[in-house]
Amino acid sequence: MPSSCTGKVYLVGAGPGDPELLTVKAQNLLRRADVVLHDDLVSQAILMLAGPQATVVNVGKRCGAKGITQAEINARMIDSARRGLQVVRLKSGDPAIFGRLAEELDALEAMRVPFEVIPGITAGLAAAASLCTSLTDRRKSSRVVIVTGHQAHSRRVQNTLDWQALARADATFVIYMPGHDFAALRRELLAAGLSGEIPAAIVSRATTPDQRQQLTTLAELDKLAPMESPSLLLIGWSVDRASRSSGAGDTSVTLDEAELLLSSL
Amino acid sequence: MPSSCTGKVYLVGAGPGDPELLTVKAQNLLRRADVVLHDDLVSQAILMLAGPQATVVNVGKRCGAKGITQAEINARMIDSARRGLQVVRLKSGDPAIFGRLAEELDALEAMRVPFEVIPGITAGLAAAASLCTSLTDRRKSSRVVIVTGHQAHSRRVQNTLDWQALARADATFVIYMPGHDFAALRRELLAAGLSGEIPAAIVSRATTPDQRQQLTTLAELDKLAPMESPSLLLIGWSVDRASRSSGAGDTSVTLDEAELLLSSL
Repeated sequence: MPSSCTGKVYLVGAGPGDPELLTVKAQNLLRRADVVLHDDLVSQAILMLAGPQATVVNVGKRCGAKGITQAEINARMIDSARRGLQVVRLKSGDPAIFGRLAEELDALEAMRVPFEVIPGITAGLAAAASLCTSLTDRRKSSRVVIVTGHQAHSRRVQNTLDWQALARADATFVIYMPGHDFAALRRELLAAGLSGEIPAAIVSRATTPDQRQQLTTLAELDKLAPMESPSLLLIGWSVDRASRSSGAGDTSVTLDEAELLLSSL
Repeated sequence: MPSSCTGKVYLVGAGPGDPELLTVKAQNLLRRADVVLHDDLVSQAILMLAGPQATVVNVGKRCGAKGITQAEINARMIDSARRGLQVVRLKSGDPAIFGRLAEELDALEAMRVPFEVIPGITAGLAAAASLCTSLTDRRKSSRVVIVTGHQAHSRRVQNTLDWQALARADATFVIYMPGHDFAALRRELLAAGLSGEIPAAIVSRATTPDQRQQLTTLAELDKLAPMESPSLLLIGWSVDRASRSSGAGDTSVTLDEAELLLSSL
């Protein structure tokens, strides 16, 4: 039974994984949704918040619906809304950051389907909070640059980041989907003149019970052990707090493990 | 009465203004807090979520506690935690983005006060969601650069942004605290080779009932009418969705007003 005469699509950020890091609005929409279309990375703990009336479908391209195209995802959203259903399109993190939001909005708009975007905690902010570090610091870091590892590593000219231009000591780099091989990134950042002592941290599955992290420096970046996806790489002077403390108390950060990992390299 | 034998400081992102955009965790912490120390920009609607047991203090430098120093704010947090109280240090947006988080964590750590950081929806993500636009778009925008207007405008060499290096057509610029005078910024971005047709949007008080926005282009950036603080400036090709739609339905975005504002320029 549709819960309203007019269907609508809510494009909702699910945050980084911890259900407590959903927004109140996202939680409420999930409880009331008729249909939930979610990506692979959205955690079970979050999906369980959907009400008993909801049809919950994994439209993720890796696990849930191998071979599904963006056009098919768009069609599912549009069909459900046209049947008068309240659709939650649940995207991990924040929908406006590497979430293909624009393409889905274009499709909804073309079909005149009502929609609304609800922001979420993006992985970069979650990782910083988990490490008890800031991304800016008026003493040493005044800008944040968000990119993907794909750009960071690509050999195709139009995808390559101009690290010579971007790499400044007062920037914090937040690298989504960083992959596992950081040798080229390390080389480019050092070649651009950054100090090898600049702190770096990689966080895997931030804010979930499986969170793991490793702390290092730019000079040692190529020696990081592989981490489970999704992971995120932070590089910048402001990240130095992560190497000093994990909240001096009961945070979820297991720095001992990170130190073990580091010492085993 | 302290609610626990061991005090602790929670540095919590209050999000952009809409209480529904608090995280569930922030809402729960706020309800249980013994002491809430908040910035000027945190809305009344959010502060009202604090429980009746809570002492709520505005430690904002503009309105709440004129002349208060960072050291005094730090001392208040430390004193309260040492008395066994649960302290919520509530910062608008996300604490890791231009929130002086690092300085407060340094002070807590030096005094061995337990702490935890809870991320929030930062204003840039809230503004994008309100405008129904993405900040990245694999067709045209592959990076996000977050800076402050202070940097964007400063004439002091060490604060000046190197727009020649940063300004690329595939970047989306998110400028916090942009001020009111965009003539220099416009000039620098155009001089760096960006097209005058690149869309720009300024959003004032995003996600609150007082939200207002204006949509324009880089070429016309200097003609924007002044907006009430806090405001946020977005510049980039991915922002073009904002000029086309506001969700084709009942979002809080009042595009008609924006168009009126634009036509009155």
